[in-house]
Amino acid sequence: MGLQSVSRGRTHQPCAACRMLRRRCDSSCILAPYFPCDEMDKFAKVHNVFGASNVIKMIQIVEERNREDAVKALVYEATARIRDPVYGSTGAICQLQKMVQELKMQL
Amino acid sequence: MGLQSVSRGRTHQPCAACRMLRRRCDSSCILAPYFPCDEMDKFAKVHNVFGASNVIKMIQIVEERNREDAVKALVYEATARIRDPVYGSTGAICQLQKMVQELKMQL
Repeated sequence: MGLQSVSRGRTHQPCAACRMLRRRCDSSCILAPYFPCDEMDKFAKVHNVFGASNVIKMIQIVEERNREDAVKALVYEATARIRDPVYGSTGAICQLQKMVQELKMQL
Repeated sequence: MGLQSVSRGRTHQPCAACRMLRRRCDSSCILAPYFPCDEMDKFAKVHNVFGASNVIKMIQIVEERNREDAVKALVYEATARIRDPVYGSTGAICQLQKMVQELKMQL
């Protein structure tokens, strides 16, 4: 461990995204706030479905205050697609639409 | 036009995906059945959100009989994400879940 690391108190941990992409992670990393180093699986999912460059692009186009919500939604959609490679989150939408129709008929 | 094209009756049209990716489109093209040449917008959407290589990967991992449904779902999800860059199709799921709760309370 170098003197610089010692002076900072601990060795800098790259975020989950940079760790997976094997790239340098510094304070300007756009992914670090949403993919902390102990949440590798969260990044692995969006990386698998959307690809890292698309995730970065999708985060960049939304305002900073909305980025956490955008990442949560992307992780949700990626998880749904991995679980159901045919219908993904569209499958959940279809099921819910059907449920709404059935409930409306019961009223 | 070469003799081969004349014998086939018409010049081969590359599919929307190959046209956008500027690559050769032949009878073995995995994307051609789902992205005909007159539906450029459909491919543009999934290309924008998932990236071409991820779309190909996601089509390949499902059985052939499910591929049309998988593509429809991917187009639906990409359209939702372009329309709502923060919540995408997750936004529709949240709204529907809320609607189901409200309808259940009315019963």
